[in-house]
Amino acid sequence: MKVLKEYDMDNISIATIGSHSALQILGAAKKHGFKTIVLCKRGYETIYRKFKIADRIIVLENYREMLNEKIQNLLIRENAIIIPHGSFISYLGYEGIKKIKPPIFGNREIFKIEMDRKLEREFLNKAGLRLPKELEPEEINTLCIVKFPGAKGGKGYFLVKSYEEFKQKIKEQKLDISKITIQKYIIGVNVYFSYFYSPLQEELEFYGVDRRYETNVDSIGRIPARYQDVNPSYVVVGNIPILLRESLLKEVIEMGENVVKISKEEFPPGIIGPFCLECIIDEDMNIYTFEISVRIVAGTNVFITGSPYYYVLFGRNVNMGERITMEIKQAIEKNKLERIIT
Amino acid sequence: MKVLKEYDMDNISIATIGSHSALQILGAAKKHGFKTIVLCKRGYETIYRKFKIADRIIVLENYREMLNEKIQNLLIRENAIIIPHGSFISYLGYEGIKKIKPPIFGNREIFKIEMDRKLEREFLNKAGLRLPKELEPEEINTLCIVKFPGAKGGKGYFLVKSYEEFKQKIKEQKLDISKITIQKYIIGVNVYFSYFYSPLQEELEFYGVDRRYETNVDSIGRIPARYQDVNPSYVVVGNIPILLRESLLKEVIEMGENVVKISKEEFPPGIIGPFCLECIIDEDMNIYTFEISVRIVAGTNVFITGSPYYYVLFGRNVNMGERITMEIKQAIEKNKLERIIT
Amino acid sequence: MKVLKEYDMDNISIATIGSHSALQILGAAKKHGFKTIVLCKRGYETIYRKFKIADRIIVLENYREMLNEKIQNLLIRENAIIIPHGSFISYLGYEGIKKIKPPIFGNREIFKIEMDRKLEREFLNKAGLRLPKELEPEEINTLCIVKFPGAKGGKGYFLVKSYEEFKQKIKEQKLDISKITIQKYIIGVNVYFSYFYSPLQEELEFYGVDRRYETNVDSIGRIPARYQDVNPSYVVVGNIPILLRESLLKEVIEMGENVVKISKEEFPPGIIGPFCLECIIDEDMNIYTFEISVRIVAGTNVFITGSPYYYVLFGRNVNMGERITMEIKQAIEKNKLERIIT
Repeated sequence: MKVLKEYDMDNISIATIGSHSALQILGAAKKHGFKTIVLCKRGYETIYRKFKIADRIIVLENYREMLNEKIQNLLIRENAIIIPHGSFISYLGYEGIKKIKPPIFGNREIFKIEMDRKLEREFLNKAGLRLPKELEPEEINTLCIVKFPGAKGGKGYFLVKSYEEFKQKIKEQKLDISKITIQKYIIGVNVYFSYFYSPLQEELEFYGVDRRYETNVDSIGRIPARYQDVNPSYVVVGNIPILLRESLLKEVIEMGENVVKISKEEFPPGIIGPFCLECIIDEDMNIYTFEISVRIVAGTNVFITGSPYYYVLFGRNVNMGERITMEIKQAIEKNKLERIIT
Repeated sequence: MKVLKEYDMDNISIATIGSHSALQILGAAKKHGFKTIVLCKRGYETIYRKFKIADRIIVLENYREMLNEKIQNLLIRENAIIIPHGSFISYLGYEGIKKIKPPIFGNREIFKIEMDRKLEREFLNKAGLRLPKELEPEEINTLCIVKFPGAKGGKGYFLVKSYEEFKQKIKEQKLDISKITIQKYIIGVNVYFSYFYSPLQEELEFYGVDRRYETNVDSIGRIPARYQDVNPSYVVVGNIPILLRESLLKEVIEMGENVVKISKEEFPPGIIGPFCLECIIDEDMNIYTFEISVRIVAGTNVFITGSPYYYVLFGRNVNMGERITMEIKQAIEKNKLERIIT
Repeated sequence: MKVLKEYDMDNISIATIGSHSALQILGAAKKHGFKTIVLCKRGYETIYRKFKIADRIIVLENYREMLNEKIQNLLIRENAIIIPHGSFISYLGYEGIKKIKPPIFGNREIFKIEMDRKLEREFLNKAGLRLPKELEPEEINTLCIVKFPGAKGGKGYFLVKSYEEFKQKIKEQKLDISKITIQKYIIGVNVYFSYFYSPLQEELEFYGVDRRYETNVDSIGRIPARYQDVNPSYVVVGNIPILLRESLLKEVIEMGENVVKISKEEFPPGIIGPFCLECIIDEDMNIYTFEISVRIVAGTNVFITGSPYYYVLFGRNVNMGERITMEIKQAIEKNKLERIIT
């Protein structure tokens, strides 16, 4: 990467957008001696000031300003490496991310699978993962979930049990079905598996498990059936830590290994750093993957004070932000930064 | 405060009632070198002995004995600062707390809003928070929750969907409705936000989020609808840690700032130390506050080994008990104890 | 124990089966300077290699191979102490465990109550614990849960509300009812209490609380009643940390004390090390115990980075694996290993 040649390796700074997992990322970077930069939408700078983890706060009117030459040059002057996260990807989009000139920790090519359900599904299939079955409207004869591409955080999704009901709902709500996805609803519990692939160690690590805490769907179980008049929505409010049954680890790690392998083939040099498989486990212990995130997920925040699996691996408390920082530090020392950024 | 003048500042001890969050409070005090005193109802002293965190255990037949001159003088002789918590407030009441002679960490004037639903509601309204709508019985035309003032920990609450159903339940159970509160039931997830306001730093800190684990309401979601014959009750059994979606932090911190501001106006010198907003977030991300606690809540216990947000702020593991201890220590050093006790 | 006489006390190693809580156990042992051995079913060795916590990995075709003289002698040559856990007990069974020649941390006599529901129930009754009522089929007139002895992890359990429904389900599914257990379904929340009894300190410690995360029963609460067509199963996927309401600790600790006391009478020398009471708390705060585990449970994994109650007790982060290691270390130093192994 050309711009990296101009970087002062003794003064690397870590930058990210002020949202999602920025507290974890910047807290870790600061703790490990990096200078930190946060790019915030106006009004949000107070949060990052309060937590005292940003050496420099850049206030933006909207996140697309990150693409302005002025901001990009400023980041380059600060020798900034950008840590991408969910908000970064959703705000800038694949086209925006391609235009970012400073180095990004991770493989920016692979981010596109997060923005294209079809591509994502193909990728997961190639990795040999078990996916929920997709159906045409006429095929609906069991409980299904109907997803809309624009559905912000899961609002607007709905459940149906029959084609009749589907037609009725579409008609009632005058919905555009041109881009919907209909999936068989898997009866089972939600689990989100976070991994870290280290290109320097050439090794996959397992970080931990969480489940999302979603409104209003997680409130249904507190309302007796006779009082329920609820259409479930899946808007994420937070995350809850989970420890996985140890006998499941083998399969879960193999799933991660397969994802890394395919990512190298499909999007060389493959996944760099954190990723997450969003899954449901049914009563027969079948693991269904319905989504992948190819960067740090907010669920890693549940282990800010230390991942349980990293405690076993490293013998001390390490969170995902710190793991990223460790990788960058090592890459700088070994002059291998090119291997972990794009 | 007069009694404080007699205190030996080199031998301050930390005292609290043996319940609620006493393990956290006393554990922290002991760790930071304070002498500790626990006031226990007979039978409960074994717990605090087992955890080895009380230098002195005072066994009471009932908590009102704390108001006896003998006990109060003993606490004064020990240079005790009392840390109030939920059990402390509910056992002694506002009238009892006023009679306590040793210094209390916190603002004892403001505790009254915890004991008076109307005052609490006015306070939350003044702080600009969004509250669940209250209704008259005749207005019930959607799912509502009916709360009774004496309902211990949420037992005896009930749900209704219509005025007809309300009348029937009142009649069947021969209930006294003179002091009931009827609130629109907000469909959404429970989140409890814990804060700490430091009068010394003049700064609001965000500590963390939990949700209550309540019996029997949290068992409903494990019983298929056709087998449900459950009247929900809301008796707290414990708490579960939650990590908040980072983009919500701005609003949540602003809510806390507003509470601190209004508390200074309404109950000078305002909130001192920990407080909690008990909220529900609906699918449109509206945050409804249905309760406030103006002292440490038991939910802080979920982060006894370290608050995730404090890990970011302080770069190490700190729980709420330790945060309180830090404030007291600093106040002693700077000769500003008067600023944090009443 | 005869074999112990041949052991080199300066070179004790810690061994366990690769599953359940092996990461916690071996991670702790390694951290505290012990050599570690993991016995894995072929295919699972990759996990333990990945976490770098096994000095020696023994690959087995099936767990019964542990009983082979070759393996047993190898363990003895390595001066191994075996840490039993749930998988260890369920794979080897009481008869298998009796044939193990190397020392086992814990009391192998008492393990039999985990394999015999009747014995377990008698034991819990003797300890004065409150148990869910058991019924004959004809007595079913309220919500009941029907449990099968072979039901792996809770699959195959079912709910019934009447004798008619029971007969119908048995008939439809052609079930063998000779060994079923019918229990009144307790409406309330699940809580699992983990304890540690130290024979060296002669003291019971409280470690923490978790709840199981089970498929598919924990997914019911996310499906609106009208879409539910779910037969609950109780297959454990993981565990969620819980902090207990402090006022419940007294009763919960007394329950543990009673269990220890009875275990000494019924299975001398009684419980050694970790155990767990699996309970439900109803809305009247009655605690029902429906199961006991007399060894480390997987639920302790939720506190791998440190039990909150141990943080109070020890002033630092300690998990159950480390607590076991501490006990063994102390026993070696004081020449009291005989007191904690069988």
